[in-house]
Amino acid sequence: MLDKIVIVGVGLIGGSFALALKRAGQVREVVGIGRHPEALARALALGIIDRVCDDYADALNGADLVMLAAPVAQTGPILAALLPHLAPGTVVTDAGSTKCDVVAAARTVLGERVHQFVPGHPIAGSEANGPDAALAGLYQGKKAVLTPLPENAPGDVERVAAAWRACGAVMHQLTPEDHDRVFAAVSHLPHLLAYALVDDLAGKPHADMLFQYAASGFRDFTRIAGSSPEMWRDISLANQAALLTELDAYLAQLTAMRTMLAAGDGAGLHDIYANAQRARHEWQIAIEAGSTRAPIQENT
Amino acid sequence: MLDKIVIVGVGLIGGSFALALKRAGQVREVVGIGRHPEALARALALGIIDRVCDDYADALNGADLVMLAAPVAQTGPILAALLPHLAPGTVVTDAGSTKCDVVAAARTVLGERVHQFVPGHPIAGSEANGPDAALAGLYQGKKAVLTPLPENAPGDVERVAAAWRACGAVMHQLTPEDHDRVFAAVSHLPHLLAYALVDDLAGKPHADMLFQYAASGFRDFTRIAGSSPEMWRDISLANQAALLTELDAYLAQLTAMRTMLAAGDGAGLHDIYANAQRARHEWQIAIEAGSTRAPIQENT
Repeated sequence: MLDKIVIVGVGLIGGSFALALKRAGQVREVVGIGRHPEALARALALGIIDRVCDDYADALNGADLVMLAAPVAQTGPILAALLPHLAPGTVVTDAGSTKCDVVAAARTVLGERVHQFVPGHPIAGSEANGPDAALAGLYQGKKAVLTPLPENAPGDVERVAAAWRACGAVMHQLTPEDHDRVFAAVSHLPHLLAYALVDDLAGKPHADMLFQYAASGFRDFTRIAGSSPEMWRDISLANQAALLTELDAYLAQLTAMRTMLAAGDGAGLHDIYANAQRARHEWQIAIEAGSTRAPIQENT
Repeated sequence: MLDKIVIVGVGLIGGSFALALKRAGQVREVVGIGRHPEALARALALGIIDRVCDDYADALNGADLVMLAAPVAQTGPILAALLPHLAPGTVVTDAGSTKCDVVAAARTVLGERVHQFVPGHPIAGSEANGPDAALAGLYQGKKAVLTPLPENAPGDVERVAAAWRACGAVMHQLTPEDHDRVFAAVSHLPHLLAYALVDDLAGKPHADMLFQYAASGFRDFTRIAGSSPEMWRDISLANQAALLTELDAYLAQLTAMRTMLAAGDGAGLHDIYANAQRARHEWQIAIEAGSTRAPIQENT
């Protein structure tokens, strides 16, 4: 049971965390703080938070846990703003989609107090944003990854993990480097590719005709291009090196397939398509099997 | 009311066409023919077809309408097989995802009888295949595009259009060239890109770790990579020129974005991401508005 948590950025991710902890009866008071007064007022009206704070002194007073749920580029400035008011017993965590840059910012800003910061990333979301998109069940059965620091006390890591478990999440641990390498491939690259396609089509002279005939395949392929441009600009830059590695591999793959297509190499294309179909089918079976497993699974 | 229709290839597309016409009470008898005896037997057991035919003489005897619903590369061989048994009053159509190659094959094989062939393409589907995937409601509210030939009699075009309307489809007309240019961009390229990503990831040494953390964004982006490799190999080759044009434009787009990412050009990436988000949002609003419109809309 947490006495007080602070949500910095009460949108889809922070708002869903608050709702889930409330539904589980695991928190007495949730306060919100952030850049957007209208979002905070809306979160208050929706019952996601109990109180809006205007300053970090008020927000952090007596807090057990602070959740940073803002675009990752704001991690440093937010930590700098809260540091003067950070009591020794308060644990800070985050929900950012990149971890190496977040850890670097935390070390720079927090210095020896970095032991109070436990980096995290819930593997759940939606292309929708804002407090109206928040759901108490968003994390139910989903993975939440922590990338603890050597300086973290085990009890502080456990405080964050316990909160995520109360939200229904399945806990995983990775190093920040492995985390960023993995998500560059399975999340950050697909976002960039989806944005690229929609922007490419929208710029063509016959864009209206194209969009008229776009159907369910296009809809699903481009769903993630409905995501926040600011958030994904920050993620792209924050994970620049790993994302460039994945993008270069993908460009090489596409270039090889272009050569096959230009040469009429149907066997070559068929091999790639069939391998992809098989791999995706196996992935889907594994994911579906995993979602029915026992909900606690620690990769330490 | 059609007295007898012939479905060549009773899978998702052909099977759904048959089920929809039966549900609408618009056909007396549906016969099936194709390469896969087990699929035909299954379609018979599911009530999708009333009878399996072993040869085209039997199948075409007394048929009003023949629907080709096999991978597009088989169009020529199928038309060659049915031509000797094609009565003057029978209309042949198809559901292929490409039209220029289908029209060329029809002209080559049918010669002066090409006036009996009305090319078509329903804009509906799923990554699932086979008769078990067939649904009577698959075409409800979806577009069906015809690309009629100058040789087609208006009454023959209308016979095909009426069948699609009975399936609940909204009729559109395009030239074969416009059709192939449009679907290269909004369908064929996304399929190639999704296959490319899954094959790329599956070939990495840490593929197991990657797939373990792939979540809903990856799932939707790659859904179409679950589609039939044979069907999409055929489509890729059949629409080679238009697909190469789209792939080259996309490669140029990705290369420009790679330059931005490498330079840390957050403003440039943000512009692309924001433009894509806006365009996709407008598309979704237009599509949702369109799906509640009156169901008959002819673009002639």
